[in-house]
Amino acid sequence: MPFVHRRRPTYAEVDQQGVVFHGHWLAYFDDAMTRFCDHLGFPPKEVFFSTFDVMVVKAQLDWQGPAGFDDEIDIAVIPTRLGTKSFDLEYRATVEGRPVCTGVVTYVSVKPLSGGSVPIPDDVRAAFEQAAR
Amino acid sequence: MPFVHRRRPTYAEVDQQGVVFHGHWLAYFDDAMTRFCDHLGFPPKEVFFSTFDVMVVKAQLDWQGPAGFDDEIDIAVIPTRLGTKSFDLEYRATVEGRPVCTGVVTYVSVKPLSGGSVPIPDDVRAAFEQAAR
Amino acid sequence: MPFVHRRRPTYAEVDQQGVVFHGHWLAYFDDAMTRFCDHLGFPPKEVFFSTFDVMVVKAQLDWQGPAGFDDEIDIAVIPTRLGTKSFDLEYRATVEGRPVCTGVVTYVSVKPLSGGSVPIPDDVRAAFEQAAR
Amino acid sequence: MPFVHRRRPTYAEVDQQGVVFHGHWLAYFDDAMTRFCDHLGFPPKEVFFSTFDVMVVKAQLDWQGPAGFDDEIDIAVIPTRLGTKSFDLEYRATVEGRPVCTGVVTYVSVKPLSGGSVPIPDDVRAAFEQAAR
Repeated sequence: MPFVHRRRPTYAEVDQQGVVFHGHWLAYFDDAMTRFCDHLGFPPKEVFFSTFDVMVVKAQLDWQGPAGFDDEIDIAVIPTRLGTKSFDLEYRATVEGRPVCTGVVTYVSVKPLSGGSVPIPDDVRAAFEQAAR
Repeated sequence: MPFVHRRRPTYAEVDQQGVVFHGHWLAYFDDAMTRFCDHLGFPPKEVFFSTFDVMVVKAQLDWQGPAGFDDEIDIAVIPTRLGTKSFDLEYRATVEGRPVCTGVVTYVSVKPLSGGSVPIPDDVRAAFEQAAR
Repeated sequence: MPFVHRRRPTYAEVDQQGVVFHGHWLAYFDDAMTRFCDHLGFPPKEVFFSTFDVMVVKAQLDWQGPAGFDDEIDIAVIPTRLGTKSFDLEYRATVEGRPVCTGVVTYVSVKPLSGGSVPIPDDVRAAFEQAAR
Repeated sequence: MPFVHRRRPTYAEVDQQGVVFHGHWLAYFDDAMTRFCDHLGFPPKEVFFSTFDVMVVKAQLDWQGPAGFDDEIDIAVIPTRLGTKSFDLEYRATVEGRPVCTGVVTYVSVKPLSGGSVPIPDDVRAAFEQAAR
């Protein structure tokens, strides 16, 4: 079972069409990534400033249907590619089982506080591999 | 020459890495789309509620480098695909000529205030074709 | 005991000073208001479009200290004034007991989907009075 | 004549009530402050990281009427108080002359990159005094 993060859109995030403005989904997925890493034992609040930080270099999003104010969005997070210095996380968002948005985000592992790319730390890699099963 | 929209990142939009948070780019491109349509004679403030509205169904983004607080970002907008009911706009963002982010966003033409997909209005199609040259 | 809503700042919400950008607090408080009304039995997802909606007309905020990425912010919500057509909610945000931001927001009760001011519905008023004790 | 910054609300910033979500106004005012300082010869992109940075400690906002998608909002910026280490800026936002939102924001002058409060630099003070006339 993949890790799932629940997010309820705030009033500010819903536009005049009555749906979550499409531009907010990358932030939703980023937030899900924070909770996912925290869940795996790598709290971004600490590791992003000490042992493991990331830079986003690519993102693909597809929308399947609307999500509205205060809907209960469930965002599944699945590692789908693990390279030496970069990896992909796939996000699958549903509302009561109905698909609303999917995304694949490519991250490069960077040295905290400097930004240069570095290999994904071994313990993070092992946790991602475990989560991908 | 493509239409170009200039955007300067606000303090709120820059994160602890000192760069525009990646999730803001879809909003930047959306804003550029507003100005692009306005420039073509279809002000979204009016047409989105009367004759021509859109729904975003797909987006692909690639980042090439950082953009920071108050940088002068130039976002070129180019129609790259015109289907019957959907179309793609490509966005190429640069800072002083240096590429920072590119995006391709797929829009479906929808009936204003209802949301059902409809063919792209003829006058909008003609303007997009002209802009694509 | 007042109602308390917990909010963890996302990476996108923290600026180059390493703290939550001040402009996000009104959105945090708005989100806390949604959960507060939901808690009282008036889910905004339903009532804002049927029996009880609000318009913000005034806000006062004071900051006491910083809140950073993924901190556990506890936001207490207390009704402090109940007029005929308007009311105030006070928000007291703390991180591990340390005050970080307080706010008083004045809301006008409006007719859903129209916007005209109307008396606060009796059942909402009663629930707010109960919560204020 | 006060300095005036023009801002057009994006689609993302307008909520289901068809108006700019109230929580965005502090960000609008912050952006106006950036342009105001730039106009006075203190570009925040440089000075915030070298000679003059600020921390927001208090804000008061009042709304007089709605602003909608792509409206042309004019935000006047007026220094209204200059203390030793803190100052107030007043913001008056109008749409075609119609008042929509006013704000008073209190800033503390801080040492860039450290955060400790320091006296307002003399040259900034002189420029603010000049702008207040």
